[in-house]
Amino acid sequence: MKIKSVSFKKVFYEYFEPFTISLGTHEEQENIEVCVELEDGTQGWGEASALFVISGETPEMLHKMEVTVKDILIGKEIERYQDLFNMLQNLRATPAVKAAVEFALIDAFCKRFGIKPYQFFGGAKDRLETDKTVGIEDLKTTLTKVERIYKDGFKKIKIKVGRDVKTDIERVVRSKEVAPEASFVVDANQGFTPKEAVEFIQALHRESVSVDVFEQPVFRYDIEGLKFVRWNSPYPVAADESVFTKQDALRVIKEEAVDVINIKLMKSGLSDAMAIIHIAQAANIKLMIGCMGESSLGIRQSIHLAAGTGAFTYLDLDSHLSLKEEKFRGDFKQEGPFIILN
Amino acid sequence: MKIKSVSFKKVFYEYFEPFTISLGTHEEQENIEVCVELEDGTQGWGEASALFVISGETPEMLHKMEVTVKDILIGKEIERYQDLFNMLQNLRATPAVKAAVEFALIDAFCKRFGIKPYQFFGGAKDRLETDKTVGIEDLKTTLTKVERIYKDGFKKIKIKVGRDVKTDIERVVRSKEVAPEASFVVDANQGFTPKEAVEFIQALHRESVSVDVFEQPVFRYDIEGLKFVRWNSPYPVAADESVFTKQDALRVIKEEAVDVINIKLMKSGLSDAMAIIHIAQAANIKLMIGCMGESSLGIRQSIHLAAGTGAFTYLDLDSHLSLKEEKFRGDFKQEGPFIILN
Repeated sequence: MKIKSVSFKKVFYEYFEPFTISLGTHEEQENIEVCVELEDGTQGWGEASALFVISGETPEMLHKMEVTVKDILIGKEIERYQDLFNMLQNLRATPAVKAAVEFALIDAFCKRFGIKPYQFFGGAKDRLETDKTVGIEDLKTTLTKVERIYKDGFKKIKIKVGRDVKTDIERVVRSKEVAPEASFVVDANQGFTPKEAVEFIQALHRESVSVDVFEQPVFRYDIEGLKFVRWNSPYPVAADESVFTKQDALRVIKEEAVDVINIKLMKSGLSDAMAIIHIAQAANIKLMIGCMGESSLGIRQSIHLAAGTGAFTYLDLDSHLSLKEEKFRGDFKQEGPFIILN
Repeated sequence: MKIKSVSFKKVFYEYFEPFTISLGTHEEQENIEVCVELEDGTQGWGEASALFVISGETPEMLHKMEVTVKDILIGKEIERYQDLFNMLQNLRATPAVKAAVEFALIDAFCKRFGIKPYQFFGGAKDRLETDKTVGIEDLKTTLTKVERIYKDGFKKIKIKVGRDVKTDIERVVRSKEVAPEASFVVDANQGFTPKEAVEFIQALHRESVSVDVFEQPVFRYDIEGLKFVRWNSPYPVAADESVFTKQDALRVIKEEAVDVINIKLMKSGLSDAMAIIHIAQAANIKLMIGCMGESSLGIRQSIHLAAGTGAFTYLDLDSHLSLKEEKFRGDFKQEGPFIILN
């Protein structure tokens, strides 16, 4: 079945509240919706969502890739998706577009054959539990937000850190008081030096904070620093910004620099995400799945991958919970932290 | 859709001619056919084919795994194949059974949804070209067989070596005369020491033999020796017996020990084969796909994987051409070296 058309559309979302990480503050999100239509009218959908401070992509440049993607896809057989994936590897400057287009192709392929995408990926699970994230805030606001999330039923809470070691330690340690049964992911988004990172994480350990993962403590290119943190942290250390491609994944594994890799479709596309899953599993490295600013349409992509492969120990699929959407467009149910397919 | 039954059946084949490699001679082949049947009667088929000198598996022990596989599969949903694959990872002593069962599951899954397995794997190609193999023979017989294969249209010819460096050099160099446009794979099946291997392969280079790949020159566990051969061979060097699992693949890549990995479903099963494809591609390591003693039913498994992923530079899928079969059971056409799907 041939691909008849491809269309890109810009969509604009506001955050319920401004969202701050060590790299900057976001108040709005502009995504690109991708629709791939087959000759029989079957449609596959994807969404590209990038954060400029993470990947250097802007919504404008992502939107401009429509022409290139049309050139690659139109008239091609959907059943030859691997060929199409190979050609889409050239979208190396715009991994968010690669992700959206690759998912839209698989979505169309699956619809054509009456398979659900998560079944195509292996059908391992049909229920997931995600964390929810608190940005960088002052102590009081941090505690208010952690408490609110905890009361909403989330037992896994992610706290953004990486601005100031002392304040960050206090923010996380004190969060225990308002969310006593929760476990935490702490995410520095590259904000610490290696020595600060170790000081920070060892302090949390002395205070018996339940930390699941310490994410991207140091500068993305400082693999040696990442390795230093890994072997001096009592908790698992994850690469996020350090790993976009499967080659990046292979490198941090070769260098024994991490315990966990955080896969995001928007960094890797579906093809490299699949590869990273396999590479990490071979190395006994645990996996996390995260997101950028995807709406319910875009987060669906990661939900199907995570449920189908069952490969992820840590789930951070909460972006859609922070955006004002006129209409919920996922094919899943959200019940507090639980995501239910089918 | 639930799995209703699983059945194993022993089948016996004679080789047209005795087949000798550095590890021994084979005159017959006993395989296990695996059928997985769903509640609606859909059947998925696989075949386990092992060579004792390669993997330590015997047909008798493979056949005895039927009970265990029934325990794992019966009553389970075919749509949750990844869960089933995870459980089948315990078949580490019998990778050939793992391969047959995993493929039978995917075959049933695909039939249920009306997909061809090679489309499920990505549909990259629907036509493949394989080499054909000459075992270890004296010089005269080697040349007779190489000439016959060449006249049958094969432009890629594999010659088994690894018994005696001088004789092997002569056998390959002289083969050029009877197959002037052919290129060769030379496969020592671990038969050389690292120094013999380098002597052998450099001699072929001095004689301008067109060698595509030098396969498994040294003892499977001698990764340092393999690396020595790799960096002293003008031609690509492949691991075969050194790589069964995805962990093995990661190790030879970490140690920069090979240019090529030869994947065989019978060594890795489908799950680890998929993983090795991704790992190798991330490392820019080329891939070969090979076989044990599969009939047309079993070779079909590798054909679908190779065609669908399009991941293999070198194809050695010729076992079915050497076995006496009452009935051709592939869903492909064989025209000399060409394998045509659809």
